[in-house]
Amino acid sequence: MEKALQELKKLLGEVMDLQGAAAVLNWDQQTFMPSGGAETRGEQLGTLAKITHDKATSPRIGELLEKLTAVGYTDPDSDDARLVRNGLKDFTKASKVPSSWVAEFAQVTAVGQEAWEKSREGSDFSKFQPHLEKIVRLRQQYAEYFKPYDHVYDPLLDDFEPGLKTREVQAIFTGLRDEQVNLIKAISSRPQVDDAFLKRQYKEEKQKAFGEDVITRFGYDWNCGRQDKAAHPFTTSFGLGDVRITTRYLEDDGASGLFSSMHEAGHAMYEQGISPTIKRTPMFTGASSAIHESQSRMWENLVGRSHEFWTFYYPKFQAAFPENLANVSLDTFYKGINKVQPSFIRVEADEATYNLHVMLRLEIEIALLEGSILVKDLPAFWNHKMQEYLGITPKNDTKGVLQDVHWSAGLIGYFPTYALGNLISLQLWEKINADIPSLPDQIRSGNFAELLDWLRKKVHTHGAKFEPQDLVQRVTGSKITPEPYIRYLKKKYSEIYGF
Amino acid sequence: MEKALQELKKLLGEVMDLQGAAAVLNWDQQTFMPSGGAETRGEQLGTLAKITHDKATSPRIGELLEKLTAVGYTDPDSDDARLVRNGLKDFTKASKVPSSWVAEFAQVTAVGQEAWEKSREGSDFSKFQPHLEKIVRLRQQYAEYFKPYDHVYDPLLDDFEPGLKTREVQAIFTGLRDEQVNLIKAISSRPQVDDAFLKRQYKEEKQKAFGEDVITRFGYDWNCGRQDKAAHPFTTSFGLGDVRITTRYLEDDGASGLFSSMHEAGHAMYEQGISPTIKRTPMFTGASSAIHESQSRMWENLVGRSHEFWTFYYPKFQAAFPENLANVSLDTFYKGINKVQPSFIRVEADEATYNLHVMLRLEIEIALLEGSILVKDLPAFWNHKMQEYLGITPKNDTKGVLQDVHWSAGLIGYFPTYALGNLISLQLWEKINADIPSLPDQIRSGNFAELLDWLRKKVHTHGAKFEPQDLVQRVTGSKITPEPYIRYLKKKYSEIYGF
Repeated sequence: MEKALQELKKLLGEVMDLQGAAAVLNWDQQTFMPSGGAETRGEQLGTLAKITHDKATSPRIGELLEKLTAVGYTDPDSDDARLVRNGLKDFTKASKVPSSWVAEFAQVTAVGQEAWEKSREGSDFSKFQPHLEKIVRLRQQYAEYFKPYDHVYDPLLDDFEPGLKTREVQAIFTGLRDEQVNLIKAISSRPQVDDAFLKRQYKEEKQKAFGEDVITRFGYDWNCGRQDKAAHPFTTSFGLGDVRITTRYLEDDGASGLFSSMHEAGHAMYEQGISPTIKRTPMFTGASSAIHESQSRMWENLVGRSHEFWTFYYPKFQAAFPENLANVSLDTFYKGINKVQPSFIRVEADEATYNLHVMLRLEIEIALLEGSILVKDLPAFWNHKMQEYLGITPKNDTKGVLQDVHWSAGLIGYFPTYALGNLISLQLWEKINADIPSLPDQIRSGNFAELLDWLRKKVHTHGAKFEPQDLVQRVTGSKITPEPYIRYLKKKYSEIYGF
Repeated sequence: MEKALQELKKLLGEVMDLQGAAAVLNWDQQTFMPSGGAETRGEQLGTLAKITHDKATSPRIGELLEKLTAVGYTDPDSDDARLVRNGLKDFTKASKVPSSWVAEFAQVTAVGQEAWEKSREGSDFSKFQPHLEKIVRLRQQYAEYFKPYDHVYDPLLDDFEPGLKTREVQAIFTGLRDEQVNLIKAISSRPQVDDAFLKRQYKEEKQKAFGEDVITRFGYDWNCGRQDKAAHPFTTSFGLGDVRITTRYLEDDGASGLFSSMHEAGHAMYEQGISPTIKRTPMFTGASSAIHESQSRMWENLVGRSHEFWTFYYPKFQAAFPENLANVSLDTFYKGINKVQPSFIRVEADEATYNLHVMLRLEIEIALLEGSILVKDLPAFWNHKMQEYLGITPKNDTKGVLQDVHWSAGLIGYFPTYALGNLISLQLWEKINADIPSLPDQIRSGNFAELLDWLRKKVHTHGAKFEPQDLVQRVTGSKITPEPYIRYLKKKYSEIYGF
């Protein structure tokens, strides 16, 4: 059996190597690649994807997994037991999808991506519509490969949140929606906060230096990573010892680039904290997209937008930009970076409105897959829902239904993870604060070591050994639930807006 | 047959995609990779190499090549005819080498590389000796797979100079050696030139701006490439539209980084000029290492160290570094950058001594493979030969036998290409100047377009369709020969040193 296990690890290791190589090519494409290299890069990534899929679904891996599944492991949570258990699930799932579907999906989304970009330029949804129709049809077909299911959305969601069911997500969101809508109403009835001082000129060079100082203090390991610029910030892991982040700076916004760096550093520290004992296995990644987002949002919001954090950092920030901030007090600054304002673009949304953007998308995705709305009716549906949740209507589709890259990339099933990540971040945060009562004081002193250490031990080290619900249960004692997040929002914003 | 050809192109295209992916990983490793990523990167490159070798030697490719070889092509120089002809040679060669040898060689050179570095640190050849012994033994074994051969060195040389025989190289070098040794004696008997002004402080930022201006004017296409810093400058092609170069700047040397950029741009413009009709095939690369070197050395030396070039550029260079050059005349500068001085390190050698370094290494490589000297006797043999050729003896082995990375990397057979490249560059140069009589005037005006256009049409566009001797014959009317280079050296240095 030891021999079979070694062979399995070798074969899975090769799959991981190929995925890591593709990640390097993707990173380069978004950071340094000259424009002339695009076509060639597409071919290389296509070939890597094809070979990776072939290797990951090779019959030999299936045989080995079957053989090893028959073994009784003394500790079902051991690395080896989990490798086999999770490996079998992944293999079974991947094997149900024919190569022809994989190839067609790759082709349709590649073309769809281009169509989406053109569609955005003229804010003309009709150009993207036929492509999105194909993508939805392919995603419906994808779900069919996993029949029987409770819900057509389940197989898609499972790709990002292993084990989680659509009904669970809907139940969680139902408890959350009205609370958030009511909160926004309460806030809008109060005097609004001022953040004009954030919209002055903030030199990129100084933003960069400040942001690097912050994430260094957080604990981002520069020996095992680096930060570059990219149009759309992201984090990517190439495997053990190389987890990179990207950011972008807006010179007319003092905070946007900084929060982006904190966010990506949160993702990256998660990957940097996975146990080396599971390196080069499929478990050497985050447990799920939502757990990943819980880490990025924790560092960005629970730490980065807290009064404690700025008690330490505001004097330094003020010193870096005296021309903008000399006359702005800490409290004014704190309120400014936490300003609530219903807006059209999800990625720029504040904490109070963010989840509503996500819920809107989940409703749409489910309706599309169920067939209860048609792609052609999407813009109207979108605008109707925006009005219902946020009380605003976008001027055009580029600021509305065309804003996100996900659907053109075929990523249906991904959106809920953004909101779930917020919820989980608070469940963890309450537990952390119970375990480390002095944490607020530590943050006020610019000390994040104990926080990171807690996250390392409780969350990061496990990688993807456990499914997200299981992991949240193990760490916090309950499954994913919205109450801590609702408590947090109410407390934070009632203080800021005085209601 | 058309179907078989399409299938062959598809399979070879995948091999090229994998090679391109590995090139991206290698480039990143030498430019941006954080130190923590080294182990993982090694695994990824190992897996890519293995899969690439498996794909390139797949029986299906052999079948298709055999089938297609039976076809009579109307034009034996057409892309398709050459694809099949060259493909069969590559396939046959690769198939003769067992995977076990490939794996052992990869392992031995990986360990050898580390041992070489340690050996250099303490200038202790004995630490590297057992590794080099293994490498030589493996290279002898490699040659055996290609029996019968005229010379044991032939199969190794053929990897870098397809079709070229050891006896041909030896004949070429025999005519060259005495001429170069005599030239150096003539130079050393004359008053020496001064280049102290080059060894002052030259700010990196200004060097960079100047170098970029030069290679832009040469015709390096930045839409299809970029330049970054690396400890050891190199050029790498990822395929159509993405050919990158690297350089390094020495702040106490005003010329080193600049000539390095010109050299690499020469390599890169070659790759950028290959016909798109053969993209994603094994012909989408240079014809050989020597042809490649003929391009880099041409731009670096025949253009970059010429009086014509500096007639145009020296005023600009002087303006960039007035603190160093205000009182240095064009003629003094020209002599300074062409100073001849026998030195220990090949990569820093001037044009008059460079080839002697290469001949020394060829003698050693042949002697090692033939078994006429033993690895343990290498340091003494090296020093003896350095004295004979250049009249100097290195103080230690780091400055002597341990200076180059090639042997630890298993690259035996590569060195002669450096000298052959110099010779070819002059054969081409004489032909170019015959075809474009106004070229010196054009260069004096900073105009390189017609030169590049000539190279594109005569050399670059063909990629690796023709073997090097064949290509040189087609373009210049004769095979590789040292006479033009000897003429060039004599004329240039008799003018500079006045003999």
